[in-house]
This record gives sequence, C-alpha cells and structure tokens, in this order.
Amino acid sequence: MAQQKKIPDIVIKRLPIYYRFLTNLHQMGISRVSSSDLGKKMGITSSQVRQDFFNFGSFGLQGYGYDVEQLRQEIGNILGLNKQRTMIIIGAGHLGQALARHSAFEKEGYSVVGVFDVNPHLVGTKIRDIDIQHVNKISQFCRENKVDIAVITVPRTYAKDVADLVISLGIRGIWNFTSVKLNVPEDVAVENIHLSDSLMTLGYYVKCLHEREEEQEEQEE
Amino acid sequence: MAQQKKIPDIVIKRLPIYYRFLTNLHQMGISRVSSSDLGKKMGITSSQVRQDFFNFGSFGLQGYGYDVEQLRQEIGNILGLNKQRTMIIIGAGHLGQALARHSAFEKEGYSVVGVFDVNPHLVGTKIRDIDIQHVNKISQFCRENKVDIAVITVPRTYAKDVADLVISLGIRGIWNFTSVKLNVPEDVAVENIHLSDSLMTLGYYVKCLHEREEEQEEQEE
Repeated sequence: MAQQKKIPDIVIKRLPIYYRFLTNLHQMGISRVSSSDLGKKMGITSSQVRQDFFNFGSFGLQGYGYDVEQLRQEIGNILGLNKQRTMIIIGAGHLGQALARHSAFEKEGYSVVGVFDVNPHLVGTKIRDIDIQHVNKISQFCRENKVDIAVITVPRTYAKDVADLVISLGIRGIWNFTSVKLNVPEDVAVENIHLSDSLMTLGYYVKCLHEREEEQEEQEE
Repeated sequence: MAQQKKIPDIVIKRLPIYYRFLTNLHQMGISRVSSSDLGKKMGITSSQVRQDFFNFGSFGLQGYGYDVEQLRQEIGNILGLNKQRTMIIIGAGHLGQALARHSAFEKEGYSVVGVFDVNPHLVGTKIRDIDIQHVNKISQFCRENKVDIAVITVPRTYAKDVADLVISLGIRGIWNFTSVKLNVPEDVAVENIHLSDSLMTLGYYVKCLHEREEEQEEQEE
C-alpha cells in the first residue's frame, strides 16, 4: 500500500476512530463489518468509507464486508502503531502528570521517556518510574535519546518557547495542550487539543435539551 | 433564529472552531472575514461555510464578508455561551484537578461548582476554593444545586456507574474522559474525549515525516 498522494487531513483524522470502532467490534467477537455499518458509526456514507480506504489501497472484499481484525491491523499499520514511539512531556503539572500516567498510550506503542518541568518541588521526583528533570536538561536528553513527540503541557505563555526549543532539537511531532496556536515549519506535525471545543459542543446539546424540556413543560401547562 | 430542524452533528462540532477563529481574528483587530477565508481555516469550502450558517438563519452580508464580532456573538449565543453553566467533576485525580483548575472554561461561562472523589486523602481538601466531597454526597449536592454538566474523570471501571448516577439525578450533559462508551437515554448529551485519537493522528504525520526524511537521505547517498 504505497502512499502516492497527499491524503486529506479529514480522512487521517477518521483513521483512529475506525481503529477504535474495529477494536471494539473485535473485542465483542464480531469478525465482519460492512462499509455501511462502519459509515453509520462514523456518521458518513458507506461510499465515503470505501473512498477513505481507497486512499490506502483496497481492503477486503466489499461484497462480504471487511474482515474486522484484518482491517484493524491494516489501519493500525498505516497509523504506525506497529512501531514504538517515544514521547517527552514538558510541563509536569496536573495535566502533564495525568498524561504521563495514562496507560492506554503505551498499549498503542507510545511510551513516555522523559518528563520536564521548572518547579523545584517537582524536579527530582518521579512519575511512575520516570524522573522529572529540569527543562534545561531537554537538549542533552534529546541528544542522548530518540524522541518522536513532545507533549506540551506548560502554561500558555511558555508554549511558543518550548515549541521552538523542541523543534530546534529535531523533534518532529508536537502534541499541544496549551490552546496557543503554534507556527511550525513544514517538516513538523502539530496536533492541538482544544478541550473547550468539546465542552462548547456539549453545552450546545445541553442547551437544546433544556429548551426542549421547557417547551414540553409549557405545553403541559 | 429559531431552530426548526435537526442540525448535523458535524456542523455543531464546527461551531466552537468558528468561534475560536473569530475570537482570534477579533483579538488581532480584524473586523471582517469572508466565507472563503473562514473555509480555508476550517478545511472546508466557502459554500460549506455558508451552508453551516444557513442552518441557523443568515449571518451578515456575504458580498462584504461577515462582521467578525457580530458573527462571533451570534455563534456564541447559539452555543449558549451567553448563559452560565455549572459543572461537577467526578474523579479528582490529576486529570480532574487539571480540569478544575483550567481557567479558560470559566471565561466561556462554565463554572465548576463541585468536585467529588472517594479517596480519603483528597476528600476534605480543596481545589481552588472548592471542597472535594465524597461521591456519596453527589445526590444531595444535585438536589440542592443546579448542575448542567457532569465531568467524568474516574477510572474506567467506575465510568458506567457514575454516568448512571448523574443521569438519575437529572444531569443532562456528560463530559466523558474515560474512553468507556456510555449508553445514555435520548435526553442526555455525551461528549467523549478520546485523547488517543489525537495522538494516533499525530503519530501518523510523524511517521510520514520520518519516511520522507529517510527517502531524502537515500536519494542523497
């Protein structure tokens, strides 16, 4: 499955969701799934599902549906889950610590190899078996260790400086939790976590539910 | 702007992103924006942008672009940001504490009014000015206080029980950080945070960048 052309970001963003659904199906003992069922779960059409996979070659026989475990593995391989990736976390506050302790990432091949902070109360302590080091050790650490991804969980005001630093050290992936828009060169990938977006979406639906309830109450009166 | 029909979830998910972009534009002193510029930032076509807004009525004069601040306010109102919402957090581990301390949510009208855990080392302590209470106080708390949203940051195994409890107490919105799929009645809204999805997407791009680098190195040899 050679990758010739640029695949739309929206398709890439769907891959982990397919992977998660397929993992669930596999755990439930379901061995085949149709593109139409996958589409329903993803909120897209079955033809979009087939088109998504067509970007990477063709998977399975559509007439009989996809083999769940095979499709799961192929998508896992596209995502690179068959390879180990290393991460450092910069910012060992509550969020950094929560991420460092999150065991699910390790199952998917992502291991935290270093945690950095400036707080003297944190530097020298451990999260799991990882020493929290001072941020001024990052350069040395990155020279001595292969680091694929930097997770940025520092306060907003330090986000850009930390990003510039890790990019200068050759790190190609940034997982940005700061909500600060980072300007990075073309050969660096950034994924931003905007928790507020999710909360606002939820707030919208809650608002609609409240409005519906109020309407019903008015009708009953 | 009465809401007559069901608006696709994908459109609702874009509203907070529009809102964020418009806030940035406003902060940069930009007062007008075209649907085509908005589309570029969102990764969709200008016609999709216009269609998104058409779901809620029509905003501004398209020929001259949208008025940034007006559009921002209209989207904010649709999202219900003009109203205060209350949240309780169940699970005061690192993630729960990080969320309780996250000041950005408050700026958008979401305030944390209660935090609950079972850990005797945490119960009775405070996060900011909020007491961490034992989870067996949730029922009483919800009877005495209006709670819009329950944030679930407990370990996976407790996720369903906590969700059932808060639903039985009349909470209509669940912000679920546990990765456990929750089955909820129709009159309850759930937003799931799947951090792994974002990490896998990032991993994909990092993989592509590494592969490109390797190709270039081979060509140079």
